[in-house]
Amino acid sequence: MAPADYSLYLVTDRSLSRGRPTAEIVRQAVQGGVTCVQLREKSCGTREFLEEARALKAVLAGTGVPLIINDRLDVALAAGADGVHLGQRDMPLAEARRLAPSGWIIGVSAESVADAVQAEREGADYVGASPVFATPTKTDTAPPLGLDGLRALCAAVRIPVVAIGGLHAGNAHDVVCAGAAGLAVVSAIVAAESPHAAAAELRRAIQGIRKGHSENV
Amino acid sequence: MAPADYSLYLVTDRSLSRGRPTAEIVRQAVQGGVTCVQLREKSCGTREFLEEARALKAVLAGTGVPLIINDRLDVALAAGADGVHLGQRDMPLAEARRLAPSGWIIGVSAESVADAVQAEREGADYVGASPVFATPTKTDTAPPLGLDGLRALCAAVRIPVVAIGGLHAGNAHDVVCAGAAGLAVVSAIVAAESPHAAAAELRRAIQGIRKGHSENV
Repeated sequence: MAPADYSLYLVTDRSLSRGRPTAEIVRQAVQGGVTCVQLREKSCGTREFLEEARALKAVLAGTGVPLIINDRLDVALAAGADGVHLGQRDMPLAEARRLAPSGWIIGVSAESVADAVQAEREGADYVGASPVFATPTKTDTAPPLGLDGLRALCAAVRIPVVAIGGLHAGNAHDVVCAGAAGLAVVSAIVAAESPHAAAAELRRAIQGIRKGHSENV
Repeated sequence: MAPADYSLYLVTDRSLSRGRPTAEIVRQAVQGGVTCVQLREKSCGTREFLEEARALKAVLAGTGVPLIINDRLDVALAAGADGVHLGQRDMPLAEARRLAPSGWIIGVSAESVADAVQAEREGADYVGASPVFATPTKTDTAPPLGLDGLRALCAAVRIPVVAIGGLHAGNAHDVVCAGAAGLAVVSAIVAAESPHAAAAELRRAIQGIRKGHSENV
């Protein structure tokens, strides 16, 4: 399997989706250029979470965009998702890897260089560096890393670093230049008037930076 | 493996445990005669849930008392528990069976005869008939089955029926006579001054009824 493309990584949040179904947001966002989708549900029951995961899997079928499930290995296994994303209060990485099918993507949240180094050592496929900037989406987070913190984190590991927290087209350039392999966004897409247009704008911003980088090299 | 003994089935609830660690409550309760333990956690993170499951597994090692995990197949798999208990909003039974190791106990909550018949048809090892009486422990339940409802439910299936909801030594006789293979209790043990003494009293009540039954046959 080709390595996953984390460059524009959507994390869902139904509470910010303005009443629109998550599957519809994801469908539009993928048409706009999202390359990876994480389903995050923090308050629904397991059955509903699983139904949502299956709905997203159907939307993503044939697109090549992987479906990652936040926290819940049981939901990911039952839905046939492509992997899980684990926070520091979720299942330890080693346990998840032991239970996971081979080839699964397992990402780990890192709030510090130490978290990221540990995640790499334990076999994470990527780290989610969080939060880069202050964000209203999550209220239980560590202090923002800032661009300097993100740069230090990216320099400390060889696995891809997906930056999250307060990201949008306007700061994408700085985040990519700090070394992030991808930008994870929540509200910049799910709360947008047009998730399709918002994703396309972010995609253009990221591709423009990369193009600029390779021309400068 | 011998069939599980569901006769005195403890369901944990840290919010009713008066600040005492769940592992200590379980240790005392098993010494008092509990035959099956279900770990139920509704608000902690996955990592903490898994740590709690491991602590209970250590307490139960060598006792022959199975450890069942409420809802969370991921936690049960990672902890090496003996099975899961699934509510009507949890993972569907067929999915859980597909992911479960062979020999796992899978119980399903039933609020009606129809639920119980379906659970049996789909391969549940037991049903939890819930709630038999009104209970302050759970507030999101269906109307109580009552003894007549429990009797009808027990008559409708061949798998063991574990009754739950408002049970204590004083109504154990009626519940066993209605056909229940076991009594599940929460507050009658976890909130008791002595979980050991409370479990022993319930155990004596259940054994006394069974003895009386066999003498009458």
